[in-house]
Amino acid sequence: MSLSEKVLTGDVRAAARLMRDIDDNRPSAVTELKQIYARTGNAYIIGITGPPGAGKSTLVDQLTASFRKQGKKVGVVAIDPTSPFTGGAILGDRIRMNRHATDDGVFIRSLATRGALGGLSRSTSDVALVLDALGMDIIIIETVGVGQDEVDIVKAAHTTCVVMVPGMGDDIQAIKAGILEIGDVFVVNKADREGADRTARELAAMLEMRDTPQGDWQPQVFKTEAQRGTGIDELVGEILTHRDHLFSSGLIETFLRERNERHFVDILRDSLYKHAMAFMDRTATLPRVLDGMADSSIDPYSAAEEVIAEMLGYDPQSV
Amino acid sequence: MSLSEKVLTGDVRAAARLMRDIDDNRPSAVTELKQIYARTGNAYIIGITGPPGAGKSTLVDQLTASFRKQGKKVGVVAIDPTSPFTGGAILGDRIRMNRHATDDGVFIRSLATRGALGGLSRSTSDVALVLDALGMDIIIIETVGVGQDEVDIVKAAHTTCVVMVPGMGDDIQAIKAGILEIGDVFVVNKADREGADRTARELAAMLEMRDTPQGDWQPQVFKTEAQRGTGIDELVGEILTHRDHLFSSGLIETFLRERNERHFVDILRDSLYKHAMAFMDRTATLPRVLDGMADSSIDPYSAAEEVIAEMLGYDPQSV
Repeated sequence: MSLSEKVLTGDVRAAARLMRDIDDNRPSAVTELKQIYARTGNAYIIGITGPPGAGKSTLVDQLTASFRKQGKKVGVVAIDPTSPFTGGAILGDRIRMNRHATDDGVFIRSLATRGALGGLSRSTSDVALVLDALGMDIIIIETVGVGQDEVDIVKAAHTTCVVMVPGMGDDIQAIKAGILEIGDVFVVNKADREGADRTARELAAMLEMRDTPQGDWQPQVFKTEAQRGTGIDELVGEILTHRDHLFSSGLIETFLRERNERHFVDILRDSLYKHAMAFMDRTATLPRVLDGMADSSIDPYSAAEEVIAEMLGYDPQSV
Repeated sequence: MSLSEKVLTGDVRAAARLMRDIDDNRPSAVTELKQIYARTGNAYIIGITGPPGAGKSTLVDQLTASFRKQGKKVGVVAIDPTSPFTGGAILGDRIRMNRHATDDGVFIRSLATRGALGGLSRSTSDVALVLDALGMDIIIIETVGVGQDEVDIVKAAHTTCVVMVPGMGDDIQAIKAGILEIGDVFVVNKADREGADRTARELAAMLEMRDTPQGDWQPQVFKTEAQRGTGIDELVGEILTHRDHLFSSGLIETFLRERNERHFVDILRDSLYKHAMAFMDRTATLPRVLDGMADSSIDPYSAAEEVIAEMLGYDPQSV
């Protein structure tokens, strides 16, 4: 039985193996992914994003527990920023998730932001596909909402929760429009802290000013204390309401098409890049270009055009 | 006179215009960049990276003032995370930099992390080239060290300063190896805060454990209070010592070759992607692929291989 067939029967070890092959960028992983593709699309994907220290991992842990109580299988993809600055907290959080370690209905996978060959958003999509094929009902993608890659990742989620904390004070006024567009649900976590009501009020006010077309989803602000489990049921309820809205409004069609486009284009860009590197290897192009750049006899822009012209067999300038 | 010729005469408005054209992804920008390429390579690039709230912008402001006193022209490329979470503080910092606004010897350029078509590290390299051509002696690139793109960016710097703050407490133990490899100089800023000595000691201890080959650069830890200007002269001195080491050891050759490779490969990947998008436009491929993905009759992996085979005129599988 192939790895993909095993994954489709719910074989957890085969899934872990396939995810490693994806990490290692093995060609066989693509063959397996092709096999499972048609059998995916059943899982509901929830994105959790927010600044370091917002308590995202604790929230993910609580959401996982809540969905498990409903009998749902839960896959978690945690994007660990390789950035050192938040390393400690994240390690701590991961350890906390261990209460689900012996639960067969939970599969947790960490992805490092650095060293992800071929782009993090593609790796995340591929790993989510494997979790989907494995039979997970819910897939939670957790990522720090800093950096372009990280923000792109949550676009793969059906429902995105943006997690904030009180005490961002006046800075909230300066929050850029981007965050308002990314979130379907807003959470003020650590709601026992001073200023939680104010943060929630300000967020709600900004969301109301947002130009929402008639019939579109209007995001709400929820307060949680993930550490104590407070507000989790309400949050889960809102996520399910958003899911219902996606399907009943027909917005799901647009969402899936846009997500498919990003996934396809990610793969295309990634594969083209690999072909270009292989082409340059065969033609020993790189050392020649680097020599030329070193003595300023060639610039990298012209060199890239030349490589592309050779690869494609025509002058790209002429198109 | 072309835009690039004007930039080479030190025309600040022409430089600003060319940077806008780079932002807007205009083909003409590439033509201009080709013209200036051979005339660059004179500026010394300093990378400043560290977590939000470390006081990076204040440090950049002080370094700028210090280099200006030495009569050096200074260009600053500030990567503004589009992430909302730190938005407020960054806006504040930018305003503080305004004390250099009337100084012709200082050119400050902000780049947003989101919306950077074709990758942030490429845009940053291109903008740094323009500043170099404009005659800046020193180019300071400031970026939050979270996210893959942001970390890649500082690799373009001759000297990278990693800025930390006291109060990261026990978390420092969990700091991943990555940070130790990225920095040439380590700075504990806000050194008047409790725990500064401890943070500096712990960092130094970790750096000593690092496996540094004989003759390689051994990074030191410096304490600064950027707000009051304390420790800035020592930091500038260390940056210059690192520069001398780069040149006297011959390491500069390896550094430049690696940087040129990254820049060239970034441009190649970016251009190939644009060609693929144009190819798919001409052949109306995208709607067909998305229809196929929607009814599961095609998977994105096979679809990407087909597009590449058509573009390259051969079966990529056969290579």
